[in-house]
Amino acid sequence: MSIPHAEAEKVSGGGAWEQWDGKRGVGPLNAYGCTERAMALARIHGVGCVGLRNTNHWMRGGYYGWMAAEAGFALISWTNTKPNMPAWGGVDRHVGNNPLVLAVPRPAGPVVLDMAMSQFSIGRMESAQRAGQPLAVPGGYDEQGALTQDPGAILATNRVLSIGYWKGSGLAILLDLVAVLLSGGLATYQIGQQETEVGVAQVFIAFDVTRTGGVEVVNQAVEGVITDLCTSIPTNADSEVLYPGERALRTKMENLEKGIPVESTIWARVLAM
Amino acid sequence: MSIPHAEAEKVSGGGAWEQWDGKRGVGPLNAYGCTERAMALARIHGVGCVGLRNTNHWMRGGYYGWMAAEAGFALISWTNTKPNMPAWGGVDRHVGNNPLVLAVPRPAGPVVLDMAMSQFSIGRMESAQRAGQPLAVPGGYDEQGALTQDPGAILATNRVLSIGYWKGSGLAILLDLVAVLLSGGLATYQIGQQETEVGVAQVFIAFDVTRTGGVEVVNQAVEGVITDLCTSIPTNADSEVLYPGERALRTKMENLEKGIPVESTIWARVLAM
Repeated sequence: MSIPHAEAEKVSGGGAWEQWDGKRGVGPLNAYGCTERAMALARIHGVGCVGLRNTNHWMRGGYYGWMAAEAGFALISWTNTKPNMPAWGGVDRHVGNNPLVLAVPRPAGPVVLDMAMSQFSIGRMESAQRAGQPLAVPGGYDEQGALTQDPGAILATNRVLSIGYWKGSGLAILLDLVAVLLSGGLATYQIGQQETEVGVAQVFIAFDVTRTGGVEVVNQAVEGVITDLCTSIPTNADSEVLYPGERALRTKMENLEKGIPVESTIWARVLAM
Repeated sequence: MSIPHAEAEKVSGGGAWEQWDGKRGVGPLNAYGCTERAMALARIHGVGCVGLRNTNHWMRGGYYGWMAAEAGFALISWTNTKPNMPAWGGVDRHVGNNPLVLAVPRPAGPVVLDMAMSQFSIGRMESAQRAGQPLAVPGGYDEQGALTQDPGAILATNRVLSIGYWKGSGLAILLDLVAVLLSGGLATYQIGQQETEVGVAQVFIAFDVTRTGGVEVVNQAVEGVITDLCTSIPTNADSEVLYPGERALRTKMENLEKGIPVESTIWARVLAM
């Protein structure tokens, strides 16, 4: 588990790439500090990279993307995890779903992608199972080895599908390898040898994108892409094309107004405590 | 088209991130030079980043991953493209398939991932169509808007599927945005406003991964992950779990021995010239 008062410490590096030891401290605090450190390095060198080892779950990775983008930086960041997904062609879990975050600044609200290499998170599948709803697309394999949209069948086999079949499996493997080399930390298979998911490795790469042309050049470039995207013809009258992070922004605004929704079954359990 | 004698030139930067102008020169020469430059910057700063604008198709992106990994570096690199894929929720093409390369060194042959954000490349679908073969998994939509494995139906609608449905679309958008900000070059939608696919933007981020613990630490870390991966239980007796780049390595060895295979219909066309 997390060691509450542990503080991350720089262990090696110099120049634009540093390795930090998270001392098994609180995941979000370590990730917050290393995002700040990557930005500080980027202010000096144009790009700054922090490899963080011995840390814990960062909770919602998109947060660090928002944080960097709102400070005017682009961010590429990811974490490894315990083995929670089979590699392509395998049945047992050897690969992490290794969430990846990319973010760029934008005045109307940053463009932030926060995606795991599995088609659905375990939490999302459990939520669908509780609601008795099928998944929107196949999310894994059932006992017969067939692709299925039944969350319960997938949770029973643990055969979670990686995004793009063989592609997401390959990307998860490389994200693990690069995180291990940049942080000097544990790989997914080593995290899996422990009793719980502790001591994960994370990478934070920040880019000081306004240093060459200034804020206006960045804003215009990003706005151009988003404006073009919004001219997409939707697949049907009820659908719309969103930019990455748009749904999260809407949810945030709605939650600020109405409060944070909690599943009724979960809320009942909280009340019963 | 490419301007054969144009030479790429550094236009801005300093520190660990530089912007280069490819002058619409030969794509692979520009990409080769910028991979070298990113490694040179990484030798100084630990990490080196080159944003290359006004360049052309780099051909096989995995080549630059092999090149960096064989020199002892980790590489993250990608290119944007013309719009060749709808964004998730849209029917017309606004997003590039933006191939992404990640590579790490390994004595027995580097681990290299080279993947586009579309489930299949146009070339792969055309090849399947010529062979009269269905795709292994759904690769896009037919005229009725249904997912299909028929390559001809997808080539007719141009509704190519992104990997992981909404996820690959989001990643393609962010790769385009970050490439534009790091290179100062054209975005996918701007490339699409031209008659042909010229003036694309590329990113090369090299990491001098042996500088902290030396070659042996890197080799052991990578070997550990690959060794664990190879203990996966295969889905059936005929299948095996490969590491990213393993198939390419096998193909390379086979081609060196037997020559490079060419589809018979294509070869007939060559002979008829």
